[in-house]
Formats: sequence, C-alpha cells, structure tokens
Amino acid sequence: MAGNSIGQLFRVTTFGESHGLALGCIVDGVPPGMALSEKDLQTDLDRRRPGNSRYTTPRRELDQVKILSGVFNGITTGTPIGLLIENQDQRSQDYSEIKDIFRPGHADYTYQQKYGLRDYRGGGRSSARETVMRVAAGAIAKKYLQQKLGITVRAYLSQMGDICCELKDWDLVEQNPFFCPDATKLDALDALLRSLKKEGNSIGAKVTVIAEHVPAGLGEPVFDRLDADIAHAMMSINAVKGVEIGAGFKVVTLKGNENRDEITHDGFASNHAGGILGGISSSQPIIAHLALKPTSSITIPGKTINQQGDEVEVITKGRHDPCVGIRAVPIAEAMMAIVLIDHFLRHRAQCGEPDF
Amino acid sequence: MAGNSIGQLFRVTTFGESHGLALGCIVDGVPPGMALSEKDLQTDLDRRRPGNSRYTTPRRELDQVKILSGVFNGITTGTPIGLLIENQDQRSQDYSEIKDIFRPGHADYTYQQKYGLRDYRGGGRSSARETVMRVAAGAIAKKYLQQKLGITVRAYLSQMGDICCELKDWDLVEQNPFFCPDATKLDALDALLRSLKKEGNSIGAKVTVIAEHVPAGLGEPVFDRLDADIAHAMMSINAVKGVEIGAGFKVVTLKGNENRDEITHDGFASNHAGGILGGISSSQPIIAHLALKPTSSITIPGKTINQQGDEVEVITKGRHDPCVGIRAVPIAEAMMAIVLIDHFLRHRAQCGEPDF
Amino acid sequence: MAGNSIGQLFRVTTFGESHGLALGCIVDGVPPGMALSEKDLQTDLDRRRPGNSRYTTPRRELDQVKILSGVFNGITTGTPIGLLIENQDQRSQDYSEIKDIFRPGHADYTYQQKYGLRDYRGGGRSSARETVMRVAAGAIAKKYLQQKLGITVRAYLSQMGDICCELKDWDLVEQNPFFCPDATKLDALDALLRSLKKEGNSIGAKVTVIAEHVPAGLGEPVFDRLDADIAHAMMSINAVKGVEIGAGFKVVTLKGNENRDEITHDGFASNHAGGILGGISSSQPIIAHLALKPTSSITIPGKTINQQGDEVEVITKGRHDPCVGIRAVPIAEAMMAIVLIDHFLRHRAQCGEPDF
Amino acid sequence: MAGNSIGQLFRVTTFGESHGLALGCIVDGVPPGMALSEKDLQTDLDRRRPGNSRYTTPRRELDQVKILSGVFNGITTGTPIGLLIENQDQRSQDYSEIKDIFRPGHADYTYQQKYGLRDYRGGGRSSARETVMRVAAGAIAKKYLQQKLGITVRAYLSQMGDICCELKDWDLVEQNPFFCPDATKLDALDALLRSLKKEGNSIGAKVTVIAEHVPAGLGEPVFDRLDADIAHAMMSINAVKGVEIGAGFKVVTLKGNENRDEITHDGFASNHAGGILGGISSSQPIIAHLALKPTSSITIPGKTINQQGDEVEVITKGRHDPCVGIRAVPIAEAMMAIVLIDHFLRHRAQCGEPDF
Repeated sequence: MAGNSIGQLFRVTTFGESHGLALGCIVDGVPPGMALSEKDLQTDLDRRRPGNSRYTTPRRELDQVKILSGVFNGITTGTPIGLLIENQDQRSQDYSEIKDIFRPGHADYTYQQKYGLRDYRGGGRSSARETVMRVAAGAIAKKYLQQKLGITVRAYLSQMGDICCELKDWDLVEQNPFFCPDATKLDALDALLRSLKKEGNSIGAKVTVIAEHVPAGLGEPVFDRLDADIAHAMMSINAVKGVEIGAGFKVVTLKGNENRDEITHDGFASNHAGGILGGISSSQPIIAHLALKPTSSITIPGKTINQQGDEVEVITKGRHDPCVGIRAVPIAEAMMAIVLIDHFLRHRAQCGEPDF
Repeated sequence: MAGNSIGQLFRVTTFGESHGLALGCIVDGVPPGMALSEKDLQTDLDRRRPGNSRYTTPRRELDQVKILSGVFNGITTGTPIGLLIENQDQRSQDYSEIKDIFRPGHADYTYQQKYGLRDYRGGGRSSARETVMRVAAGAIAKKYLQQKLGITVRAYLSQMGDICCELKDWDLVEQNPFFCPDATKLDALDALLRSLKKEGNSIGAKVTVIAEHVPAGLGEPVFDRLDADIAHAMMSINAVKGVEIGAGFKVVTLKGNENRDEITHDGFASNHAGGILGGISSSQPIIAHLALKPTSSITIPGKTINQQGDEVEVITKGRHDPCVGIRAVPIAEAMMAIVLIDHFLRHRAQCGEPDF
Repeated sequence: MAGNSIGQLFRVTTFGESHGLALGCIVDGVPPGMALSEKDLQTDLDRRRPGNSRYTTPRRELDQVKILSGVFNGITTGTPIGLLIENQDQRSQDYSEIKDIFRPGHADYTYQQKYGLRDYRGGGRSSARETVMRVAAGAIAKKYLQQKLGITVRAYLSQMGDICCELKDWDLVEQNPFFCPDATKLDALDALLRSLKKEGNSIGAKVTVIAEHVPAGLGEPVFDRLDADIAHAMMSINAVKGVEIGAGFKVVTLKGNENRDEITHDGFASNHAGGILGGISSSQPIIAHLALKPTSSITIPGKTINQQGDEVEVITKGRHDPCVGIRAVPIAEAMMAIVLIDHFLRHRAQCGEPDF
Repeated sequence: MAGNSIGQLFRVTTFGESHGLALGCIVDGVPPGMALSEKDLQTDLDRRRPGNSRYTTPRRELDQVKILSGVFNGITTGTPIGLLIENQDQRSQDYSEIKDIFRPGHADYTYQQKYGLRDYRGGGRSSARETVMRVAAGAIAKKYLQQKLGITVRAYLSQMGDICCELKDWDLVEQNPFFCPDATKLDALDALLRSLKKEGNSIGAKVTVIAEHVPAGLGEPVFDRLDADIAHAMMSINAVKGVEIGAGFKVVTLKGNENRDEITHDGFASNHAGGILGGISSSQPIIAHLALKPTSSITIPGKTINQQGDEVEVITKGRHDPCVGIRAVPIAEAMMAIVLIDHFLRHRAQCGEPDF
C-alpha cells in the first residue's frame, strides 16, 4: 500500500521514473474476451505525448508501448496485462545543477524528507512522466467502457488563466493543440502561451471531464462513492489542486430549491449533481472539473534553499510545458475511465449485470 | 470492497441506517498503549449532534457511544475497537409518504436502481446520520495525532451562501452554533437561517479544515497522495460537491512565479500548495476547503417521479438542517484526522518513525 | 490491515474479546435481495455454542445474535450487515491468577511482546470465542451459496487422536455431539473424551470440509488461488496447524500417473486435486482437511515463566473443551463458505455470471 | 483483486505467461536506503533456474533480471521496483498438439471454464514459470530481512517419494542439485529420478522452510495470522497441496501436555508450535512444511477430453521436471521472506520498531 496502485478490481500499478530506463504498469482484472492491441493504446498516448506542438515540452519521446502479457491472439485473456515504455530522450545532465537544491513548488523537498534520499533527475518518480502509464491503462478501460457498455469518456480544456473555453464543439477538441472546444478562444490561447514562453513563465488551467451513457447504479455507498473515487483519482494527477463534481463550488451560494435536480417524465430537469446522487451514478452525464496549477518549472529566478539549508536562487531549466493543463486532458479521461470500469466491476460483483 | 471502509492501516468500517436499531463501526489498527474512554469520543459527537441549536434538525439523539472492545483498563490494546450508538428518536412514520417517491437531490432513485430495493426510512444508509460513526472514529484519530504527534486538526465554517467568514479567531469557532470564526458575521448567519426556515428552504456552505504541525513526509507518491486521499475522504461526506487543497481553483488564473511557494531560511514564504508537495506533506499547515450543497430536504414543493414513473409533487417533511454545512465541521475534522493517522502509519511502516 | 478482516468482496470484519462486553462483526458486500433473519444465523451458532454437551466447555452463552443493519423488511439491502452478540457468562475472576503468567501454548506471551500490554481475561482477543462471529457471518454466506447457487458446504470430525472417522453418513453428523459421520466410532470418542477429562488433558483432531456443486471457474490465478485462500482461512482458525487440499500430504509419495485425475466422458475419474486445478474450481467437490492441536488449557501442571521472567508452574483452570476440534466443525464450514462466496463475487466481477 | 498481487505493505504484483514475451513484477513498499543490485536477485534466480542439472527441465532460460526503477545510484529509493525477465527459449510449437486438449492435472480445463479462452502455450499464466518473479521479489525481501533485521530464511527438500531427508547439514543443501540436507540420501534421490525419467513419470515431494531470528511480535490477530499468511503464500505455489506449521498434522494424535511448548528460564523447551502462537511470532524458529504433488506433465499416456468433449489420450511432451519439489525450494524461501517482511512492515506501522 505504498501508493502506486489504483482501483480495486480494475487495478493499475505503475512504476518508473522520469529519467529511468523505462516506465511500466500492470493492469490486473481486465475482463477476458476483448480485442486489444498496442494501437488501441497508442492513440491516447499520442494525444498526451510531449513534443506534439510548440506549446508543450520539446522532450522527444515516442512513447511506444509494448504489451508484454495478458493478450493472446489479439484477445484479452483475463490475466494481468504488463505494459512497458522505454525512455529515450533523457537529458539527465540538465538536472545535475539541481541535485542539491529543493526547487520551489516541486516534490524535491518532500521526497528528501520522506525517504532520506531521492532520484533528482527530472523529479524522479514525482515527475508527470509517470502519467504516461495512466493513459495507457486508461485506454484499456476506455475501450471496454465504449465497446461493452457504450460509455464515452471525454475531456477538454475549459479554462487557461482568464480565458474560459465553453463546450461548443466536441469535434474541435481533437483538432487543436489545446484540446479547446471553443473556436473563438484559439487565438487568445496561442497568444497567452507565446507570451508566457517569452517571459519564462507558466499558467494554471481548468479541465472538464464528461462521461456519458453511464448506467444508473455505479458507485458504492458511504466511503467509496463514485464522486469520492473520482476526486481521489483526479487529485492524484500531478498539479491538480481542486476537484468539482457538477455544480461544484457554485453550490455554496445556491438554495435548495435552485440546486436540487427535479425529475419529470422526461428525466432530470437539470444536472447540478453532475450525474451522481448519494455517491451513485444517476444515468445523467458525469461531470468533473479539475484545477491545475501552473508548473513551477519556470526560468524566472526564484528563492529556495539547498540541502545544506543555504538560501539559493533557482532557475528551472530542463524542458517544460508552459501550461501542464493541456496535456492533462487525456490523463483526466484515463483516470475517469479507470474509476468507471472499476465501479462497473464492483457493481457487477455484488449486484450482477446492470440493466441498460 | 462494497465501500463501507476507509483507511488502509487505520481502518474504519461503519454500518447502520438512519432509522435502524443502531449505528456502529469497527476501528482497526489503532496503536496500542493510548488512554481512551467514551468521554474522548463524546466531545466531538456532541459538536455534531442534532438538536444542539435552533439552526439544526430537531431530531433528538443523545448519540451516546459505547466502546465494546479494544480498550482494557482504559488503554487501547491494539485490537479492533467496536463502537455502537443506538438510535432513539426514529420517527419512521414521517417517511411512509415518500416510500414510493424518489425525492429530487436524494439517493432514493440511485439506491433503488443499484440494489433493486431500498430502506426508504430517512434515506436509510444514504442518510448523513451515518456520519456519526465517522466522528466517533475520527475522535480516536484526533486524540492520537494530538497526543503522540502534536498534530492539531480543526475546521470552521468559511462561507454560507454569500456570507464569507474569515479565520479571525479559532476560539470563537467553538462559541457559536455556526462554527464561525468571524464575530462580525454571526448576525448575518442568524438572519439568513431564520429566513430560510421561514421559506422552507436551505443553503450551501463552504467548510475549511486545517491540520497543523504535521511532519514533512506523510503521503505516498503517485495515487495515494495525501491530497488525493484527503479529496477522497472529503468528497465522501454527504452533500460535498467540491474539494480544494491550498489555493484550489484560484491556481487556474495564477502564473508560475505567483503560485510557487518560495523557500527561505525561515521556511516557506507562502502556502498556495496547502501544505502538500508532490502528494507529500511539507510541514506547512495542510489546508482543505469543501463545498457543501444545500440539502434537498425542503418544504418547497418540487417535481419528481414515483416508482411507477408518474410525475408527482414532493415536499420533504421530516426534520432537517437548513444548512448541512454547519454540522459538517466536526465531520470534516474527523475525515482529515483519519487520513492523517492512516498516512502516519503507512509512512512508519515503510520508512520508520518520522523525525520531528 | 491490522488483520481483523477477511474476504475481498464479501468482507467480514470482527471485533470483541472473550470477556468483553460483546462480540460483533460487519459483513460488507452481501448481495441485495436475499431473505435473511436472525434465525438463519442461529442454527449454526447453536451448533458451535459452548455448553451444548458434556464434551465441551461448560461456559454458558446463549450466543443470541442481533442483526443491527443491512436488512429491511426481512430482505438484505446490499448495505453492510452489523451483527452483535453480548457476552453473558464471563467469569473473569478465573483469570486473575494468570494475569502475570504466560500460559504455554497460548498467545499470552506473543500478545504481550507485540502490543506491550494485553487483555489477559480468557485470552482476550486471541480466544476462540472470537470465532462466534465467523459462524454468524458464515451463515449468511452459506445461505446465499445454497439458495442462489445450489452450493452446499458441510464439515465433519474426521479424526480425534488415533480414532479415524470415515464419511459414512452425512445425516449422522448432526445427530451426535462430535459431528462424527461414522456410527461405529461414537463409543470410542466418548470413552476418549471421558478419560481425557479425568486426567485433565486434551487431544488433537482432524476436521474435513467439503463443498459440493461449486461451479467450475471460481478462484483467481497465481496468488489468490481458491486453495490458497482456503488455506489462509482455515489456518486462521484457532488451533489449526495444518491444511490439506484433496490428497494433501499423500501426494508426496505418489507418482504423476497415480495422482493426476484423468478425465472421461463421465467427468473426472478421481479427485486427488480436491476440486481445484491451477487454483480454480473444477466443478468436483472441494475437499479440505485441517489439523487442530490439543488445547493447551489443561489442568496438568506445566512449566512456564511469568512477566518478570521467573519460572512458575501453571494449571489452566477456567472452562475448556477437551477437544477443540469438535466445535471447529461449524467454524470450518463458515470459513469455507466465506471464501467461496468471496470468490464467486470476484469471479462475477471480472467474468460475469458463471454458467451452471 | 484479480489475484496477481501478494502482500499488504510489501506488495508484489506479477505478470507474464510461460511463452509470452517476458515476465515481470512490481515490488511496491520496499523501504528506502538499502543497497540493491541485479546481482542480489540473480543468486536466487540461478538456484531456481531450469536446466541447472540433469534432474530438471532442459528448457534453457538465463533468467537474467533487469531492475527498471526504484533504485538510484545502487540504493533503493522507496518507489516501486520494476523487474523484467525476457523469455528466450519458448518452443511454443511443442504445445500446438494440446491446443484443444485439457491435460489432466493441469489448469487447462479450469482456465477455459473461467475465462472462456486460454493461452495454451506451456500453460500460459498457470505455468510455474510465473514463479521466477516470486524468486526475484523474494530476494529483495530476503536481503532486507538479513541485513536490517538479522533474519535468515532457508529451505530444503525434506522428502521425495518415500525418501525422507533429515536436516543434518545446511551447507550441504547448496552443494547438491536436490537441495537435500542429508548426504546419505543423495544416491537414492539420484536413482529415483533416473528411474522416473526412464518411465516418463514424476514424483511428489515435501519441502521444509525455516526462518530464524524472527523477533517476537510479527503477525496480526484473528485473520491475518502469520501462520495463515504463510499457509496462503505456500499454497499459492504451483503443485502445493498441503501446508503444515510446526508439528502440523502430527498434532491430531498428540495430547495437550505433549504438544504445548513449556517455557523455562532458557526459553521454550520445544517447538511444536513452529514459532507461532496465536498467529504471532514467538521468537522461536518458524517452521513450515509443504507437500508438492508430482507434476502431471508426464509421457505415460493418460485419458482426458478435448474441447469438443471427446475422450482422447494425452502424452505431455514439452520439457518438464520429474520432481517439481526440487525447484520449489528457492520459491518457498521467497514466499516466506515476502510474508515476513510484509508482517514486519505491518507491525512497525501499528506498534513502531520492534525491540530486538
């Protein structure tokens, strides 16, 4: 229980550091009988891949995944699926300067305190490079949800700095490097990111994830509510500092008669609940929002201390994303898919196949 | 894994329904050798107890807890602690009218869909009455954190509707029925709740939880980050729709140089991170905010359907809190304490005793 | 994970000490929709109850179980079932003499070493009194297995000392106080137990558990094999020192062609495997044998040390069974039932409903 | 929870099939700060390796393990350790004949029933080839136990067929291909195996594992007793059909005064308990015996059915061990070590560092 696994029945366990030999994971509990190939995983891996556009880190990683087990003649066998991605473009020498320095906003200090030593190259295990295996595992979950249950999981960039992006067009999301669903905001996003790069700075973002066609009944009462597990999964993504379900923090100022979602012949009249009532899916779309902080890897000098406790100035070189929220879009989808398939399996265990 | 447990090493498993015979829980993993009596639990139970003030539900429950095991001669033995609270003031007849009706904003519909039947009396297992055992278990965690580690966990009402309550005075929090830390807002809170009662309505709220003197190093990398587990625990509280750590959703509009917490000789210069870096405690105060929706149990008529699918009008009688956020204060403390002691034990397992 | 739970999806967590106020447990994950009453549990509780015959401890406990939650209008709701049995006949004064003494063959010494203190009354948590809740929880499992899946779980005393009892008559098992299936051995058992009582001694035993009509496919590969989980469950019963599946230790001297169970048109030609191949049920009867040591609670004086490390002589007074193997019969059934329902739910999660 | 993990806090999750691309595992929870290299693992891997002697399968696998993560500059970092061994000598064509046949005594039938399909090449996931990763993970556990706690874990062949091998000389165990501790039995073992090879047959075996210098206090009460977890771990090894702790099945015929281990000034006077009282280590040597069946992979023709249900005759070609008990020796050590380190970490979590 050292924290490198998620899911009870669809269980993803990952390993690997930013500048180690490889990243890998084991996905245990995949139902047997589903067609699965490396291509199925590669699509989402490519969406997350660094170096895809001028707006993300120039680190070049092909992120080509190998399926090492659990699939026979192209079909899942029910045994654990081992996945591996070898690191290629590790420039660890970029990090020798920060070997003894605790970069502000990073996990350098806390890992050192916890373990008494740390792999300082690129943040080691605390790097968002780890999320590559989440996307790979999530792609298996997404395929199952889609093919067996008709559930779709999609995400988009809903805000960057002050620029709000409304959900106008799902198709557009895949057609621009920001995963932005609002064509009128593309220029502003481009301008913001260019200006940030120029000043060596970064910016926060909000990402919205939506799961549709989820049957009613998924989620466990009390502690492992569907929303609680979504909150856990989303908050476990690097840089996430807030999670909302449905109306989220807006509920603070709402009255009971404004917020409750009335039900009519035609179904729910609104969806402030974000598709979850009492921790259990209601069949409405499940909606989550996440707040991602601006990366602390910036070239504007900042104050910190080194391992000896002396104050020093730090500039984070290396290759970094000016807005980590962008690449969080496929990661957030993956996490949602992992939570949903896990709760589908948990539901099926206790209650049998859900009705659709 | 049907969801009625929380914690890996300090493991709390609860049972009981709103109008059943009793609520109970088992707390497994309590370290041996700590003095513990029913009084230790009663203080927090009384803070959460219904009927404490004119602002909460008039349901009268003494909520007197019995320790049935795990304590010998007033000292914890390391074996599981069984806790029991008998229900007293169940007016189940209040609920016979809603037997066939899915109250909007409640879990009636989703429990029915999930299990094919439900205990409709007071919401059954989905009732916030379940949280009484969280508070009891949390009191054990709080005592250990305080006495053995010097960690304090406190919470307050930080917003109700449009009324923001700043943290001006911790002492005040325990001296008013709102858990409000700001004396200038007490009248406004009183007026708001009176007016809501008059109109039979309810209002949302925000609660802030702060843990101080947490040593650096608690939290596990990747999935079971301290913030992820806090998000899970908080979102598992009835009515919570959003969780923030530190600056929370404010980070969306911040730049990297504004948000990162620089470090000097004297420690961290700010605490946007909310005391957690890379999922691990940094020794700064841990700060979480939760958004609680207005209860849907209001007497303003609303539309819904019954089990036959017919549209009906519903008024939720019974006895209800106009702002469930108030009584969420001790619950949020309990959940934070449970997460912290659990991560303390997990840390000690892998890394030995933390340095203080 | 302090060890007081068993099962992944049908999860039983127990609390309580031999001379505490009560014993209790929470059964989480029970499928909804099954009729369940206290009577369903009482039958097995009565089979295990002390004081049933002259051959067991004269401690008088009615062991009347209360269902506190999880059942509504006589039907399981899918929410956790809380069970409680209050202790009645605690003669704790019997134990004041052994307060500072480590009884040989008991857990006194190891509990003291582990926790630094212990509830010495009747062995506290280490007492076999704890198994009363296993039997209660197991009765729920047995009912589900029987009614929903047609699986039967039965056990019998297969050996006591040198007296071997062959499975000749299942009906007989319930008609004698030894759970013996062989009428020709009843007198010998009676004589042995009388003579043991006279000399203040005890004897070991072997118990055999058989589950029939188990569908093929239950059990998980590699670590959580059905046989591995059965071994875990059986070895967790007080006094058990050995577990065999099918031919058990006899396989050591068998050759491959003698041991393998050939398959014909009519099914398996033999059942050395005990119904499990590769950790997964084969549809043959599942057969396990357990070895139970003679209780160390005897009145023949023995050497030991006290907490100060001085050598002392000890006689275990109190009220004890001369052969704990007898009352282990319903306990072994309960553990088998818990393992089987848990694996049924795990199987259903990943693979859907099994074909029958 | 699909069964491919073991351990709560020292958690080993494996993947891979007999004839897949690779076998791998993730070891999560390794304490930070221990020197670790591939050589540390290779020693035990070589002891288990096939093709070591004329008495084991001639399949040639170098079994060279790669550490992919969790170690930095030769020291464990506390993050998960990813291990990989690529398969080299897969002669999958050997298996095309048995594609549609359920080999008796194998998991072919049960995997097919459970999953609806199976990787038939060499038994796929059910092959003992999977145990290679247990040995690799176990070597990490063994090193930690030895270096940090002074605990040794060793095993030997205690019986093969009718030939009993007494523990006379631990050094001898590593000096003969049978792991036999009794020089007087080496010729008989050689003769037996030669005769079995000639007749194309196999034989069962007993293996004994002993852990010394285990501090008192490891093990959890009730379900996760140390002996229960040992039984689980040992029974999860391919071909194991029985597990004994200490006197094991001999206790059936013992009386209480014969079996209880008296305690004197000089410690325990005997060790029928096998080092475990009430599920918790007593500081005596921990002793477990396992019974391994003769492999069903023999060339003597046997009856079985094919997937169509027709009776067929089967001869298992491929390359197989005439006595799988031999190579089980390092596997049993690995499993014991994994259980012990896991319980050490669990103990440290709840009770702090044990005294030595």
